[in-house]
Parts: sequence; structure tokens; C-alpha cells
Amino acid sequence: MGRYLAITGGVGGAKLALGLSKLLGPDDVLFAVNTGDDFEHLGFDISPDVDTLTYTLADEVNQDTGWGRAGESWQFIDALAQFGGETWFRLGDRDLALHVTRTRLLAEGRTLTEATRTITRALGIWHTLVPMSDDSVRTIVHTPDGPLAFQHYFVRDRCEPAVTGFEFQGIDDAVPNPEILACLRDCNAVIICPSNPFVSVDPMLDIPGMRDAIRASGAPVVAVSPIVGGLAIKGPTAKMMKELDVPATAEQVATHYGDLLTGFLLDEQDAGLHGALPVTTSVAHSVMHTLEDKIQLARATLRFVDTLKA
Amino acid sequence: MGRYLAITGGVGGAKLALGLSKLLGPDDVLFAVNTGDDFEHLGFDISPDVDTLTYTLADEVNQDTGWGRAGESWQFIDALAQFGGETWFRLGDRDLALHVTRTRLLAEGRTLTEATRTITRALGIWHTLVPMSDDSVRTIVHTPDGPLAFQHYFVRDRCEPAVTGFEFQGIDDAVPNPEILACLRDCNAVIICPSNPFVSVDPMLDIPGMRDAIRASGAPVVAVSPIVGGLAIKGPTAKMMKELDVPATAEQVATHYGDLLTGFLLDEQDAGLHGALPVTTSVAHSVMHTLEDKIQLARATLRFVDTLKA
Repeated sequence: MGRYLAITGGVGGAKLALGLSKLLGPDDVLFAVNTGDDFEHLGFDISPDVDTLTYTLADEVNQDTGWGRAGESWQFIDALAQFGGETWFRLGDRDLALHVTRTRLLAEGRTLTEATRTITRALGIWHTLVPMSDDSVRTIVHTPDGPLAFQHYFVRDRCEPAVTGFEFQGIDDAVPNPEILACLRDCNAVIICPSNPFVSVDPMLDIPGMRDAIRASGAPVVAVSPIVGGLAIKGPTAKMMKELDVPATAEQVATHYGDLLTGFLLDEQDAGLHGALPVTTSVAHSVMHTLEDKIQLARATLRFVDTLKA
Repeated sequence: MGRYLAITGGVGGAKLALGLSKLLGPDDVLFAVNTGDDFEHLGFDISPDVDTLTYTLADEVNQDTGWGRAGESWQFIDALAQFGGETWFRLGDRDLALHVTRTRLLAEGRTLTEATRTITRALGIWHTLVPMSDDSVRTIVHTPDGPLAFQHYFVRDRCEPAVTGFEFQGIDDAVPNPEILACLRDCNAVIICPSNPFVSVDPMLDIPGMRDAIRASGAPVVAVSPIVGGLAIKGPTAKMMKELDVPATAEQVATHYGDLLTGFLLDEQDAGLHGALPVTTSVAHSVMHTLEDKIQLARATLRFVDTLKA
């Protein structure tokens, strides 16, 4: 039996990833993380989705903010404001240690994969999370007022601009992370966590060779819907779909992934779609608040995968 | 009447500089600061002596530690330890904002002089402090076990290694800060603050052209002794002198500066040397604890200068 490959973006995907990590041992699952959100800021190399999953798996999520690190303080960013520095991306004092460490490791010539391993091990994480690629891919959000770097759209402008399309700069020259390709060569199943299809999952799937490697694996590919009852559990997915003039429905997410999918996991609220989609579906309680919710959804996902392999 | 030029290193010199700043207006004194202590650490460009004077003039000195910034916290450095980062140079959360700002400004192509101005203005400092040069000069401390970068000697190894000599890397290619040269062209007096002659003042004086410019100014040059009663008020000056096999005395400091000096200000404890040195001396209470001490010593220094010009 091979490993599971779990594809994830930020907060929503990381919740299911945490659940999976409680059911699957460190050698049984590889977490492949979107790095289209990455950016250079104040001289630091920042990988928001990698960090979200890192803090989630380390039980270091800041429950007050929903992002960043637990036990956080804001002395640095408040002092930076005094110097006229940019403060829209709130770097916490503790969080900063991670960015300084990664920036230093990259400057020393380590890959993002190596830097991520050093950081996650230091935080006591034994599961493996890898960036989708060690090459730079940068998500650009197109709006009526012009293109925006992803974090400018997402954090600085709070997802307010209307979206007209996306672009993944550098993707033509990027190669998939070799650890992802290795995992796909002996893969139990590919699980697409409930992340934003456009800006969390597509940057990974669109890396040249990635879709082919997934198909060639022969493993079932299951996506957990990030849209529940026409709403995004987290983030701007539903808003983006409306702006892109497609229905903000779970069905549309399945359509978006197309024939890459073997199975699609719907929330109970969308049980009416069960059996009505061109892909095999299953239904589960997918809104995750507690750790138990996350483990339950992970269990339902793995059970669904098993039925698809039978 | 021209301006005063005050040459200073770290904590001891900054105390007199603060006193001078209370008696002389922003246009009447230029603070020239040692940058031989500067180093690159954790990806940041750090200028310890510039920062010490900056925090001193901004009334932001950390009274608990005697260095660094007031109201400090240590969340960053504690979190960095978890990642195996170097923690011997304790960067506080608030202090970090200064280093990030400077590093960013330098990366954008600004000079250290320009970066210093931006930072000091942001902290409400209207006096001008400039680095001795915008070129890199790095003080190396020679020891029986080999050379040490200054901060390794000073902070990491707590001045414990015996000193056999000093080296100022890059100094042959450095030019004096143009603002210092401009100040010297119409200069009231040069005041060498009570800083370490070997590692705080010599790196500045030894920049090619600096001593000539001071001499050419025709201004009196007064040093305030950093050695009082055979002890250094602050830092390793006396320890260094013993290791270098010279008497740890105020007299020896005057000898060290040689004929560059017009006057030498002794502490009351060394009043016995008054009139016994080959340079004109004066005596004052030079151990500075309170702000009043600093202003009194500044007043005594300026009065002494006046007598030398008469």
C-alpha cells in the first residue's frame, strides 16, 4: 500500500489535513502545499499556506486571529509602523522567527523543501509537508483595475476587488516537487482538501506535468467540496465564483476539476446533489470546527476513497 | 561660529552625546558614530553604536538591560531558539523593527547615512548622527586563539578572550562620511566622547583622510577620558589595555591619542594627573548616572573647549 497525497492550500485545507494526520502515520501521507501565495515582504520569504499547515500540524494556530502563531504578540509590527513600514501583513513577533529562519536557509542555498523540513521538524512535526514546487510560482489576481499580487488582493485589499481571472507567474518554468512525483508513483489516493480551487489548488495542478503525473498514478482522486450550501466555509471562493460568472455551488467545483476527479465529497447541506453529478459522490458533515470534526471528515474521506478503489 | 563634531562609540560615549544634545541645538553639533562594530546577522544589517546613540537621543534606552530599546519583549528571539537560530545577540521584538527598516533601506540602495536619518527622524530626533563612513569597516579583534569579528568578541564571548591587537577590515577603501568632512571645514571643536579608544574611536580616526581633516580644521580636539581611576566606566577598555601591556590609566589614553589632542578631560578621581600630562587637562565629575550628570559633563566639556580656543 502506497501513501496518500493530500493537496492543500490555507486554513480550510489545513483543517482536513490535520484530521488526516491524526489517522495516517508520517509515512502514510504527504501534504503538498500551494506556494502560489508566497511573496517577499520586508526582506522575508513568506509562504503563507505552508506556514498555516505548519502551525496547524504543530498545534500552534492562533485561535484569536484564525491565522498566524499561537501566543503571539505584535511589538515588532507596531514598532515598524513608527518607521513608516508596511503593516498590512501583520507579522507577529513569534511568527517572525519562522520567516527569519526560512529566509536565512534559502539565502544559504537550501531549497524551500529543505527549509520547510527544518522548520517543521523543529516544531515537532513528523508528517511531511512539501511545497508544490521549489520553483517560484506567483498567483496574480486580475481585476478591473489591473493585476494584483495575491497577498495584495487577499490581505491588503481584503478580497474586495472583483476578480476577472488569474495568472500563475513563473509556472511554465516550474517543475513539480520531486517528492510529490515520487509519492504519485506509489499512491493510494489523491485527496484535494477543501481549499479554493482557483488560487489554492489550480496553481499546483497547473504546474507542467502535475496533472499527467496524477493521472498516470492510477490512484483515485477525491476532492472535498470547499463550497457548502452555496457558501465558502472560509475565504473568497464563493465570491470569486460569482464574479467569474459561474454558479457558486459545489456542483460547479466538481465541474471545475473535471475528469481529473474520481470522487467528490459533498457536505450534508448539499446532499440533494448526491447522485446528480457526473462524478461519484459521497456525503459527509464537512463543516469543521472542532478537532473531532476534522478527524471525522478525514475518516469519511478515507472511507470514500476505499469504496472508489474497490 | 561653526558646529561641534562629537565622535562617539556605544553606551559610554552616547551618555555624553545625550548631554551635549541638551546644550547644543540640532544645527550646532554633528554626532559621528563608529560603525566598526556593524555586522550582518540573521540577514539584518545591524549598527550597534548607531542604534545605541539613536535610542539614547530618542529617550528609548532599555533601562533594564542597559542596551537595546525600551519597553522591549523577547518573543522573537525565544521562538528563534526553537528553530536552532543564533540567539547570542539578543534582538528584541521592538528593536527588530529598526533593523528590518535599515536592512530594507540599504537593500533599496540608500546609504547608511540616509537610512540613519530616516530612522532617527521617525523617532523624533532632530539632531544629526551619521556613521563615520558609508563604506564597510569591520573591526576584528585578534586573540591568542585567532581573529574574532567584533560582536563575537564583545557579545558572544563577553570580552573574555585576551586581546593581542586590532584590525579594521576594509578601512583602506573607506572614505570619511562627507558630512563629517563638511562639519570639519567650519568646526568649533572636536569632542572625543568617553568611548573605547581602540575599538570605538580608532576605527574612525584611522579612516584615510580623517586625521588630516581634523588637523586641517584647526579646531581644538578634546577627549573625555573613558578611564577613571584605572577602571573603565563601561566596557572592556581597561581589560584591553592590560592585555596589550600598557597601563590602564587615563594618562595612557591621552598618550594613545597623541598630538591629535588639544585638551584632555580627566575625572575628579584622576585629578592628580592634572598638569602632569603633555597635553592641557581639565578636571570634571565624569561618571554619568543621571541625566543631570550627562548635562553637567557636557557643560564642563564645552567650557574646557572655550578655554582652549581663547
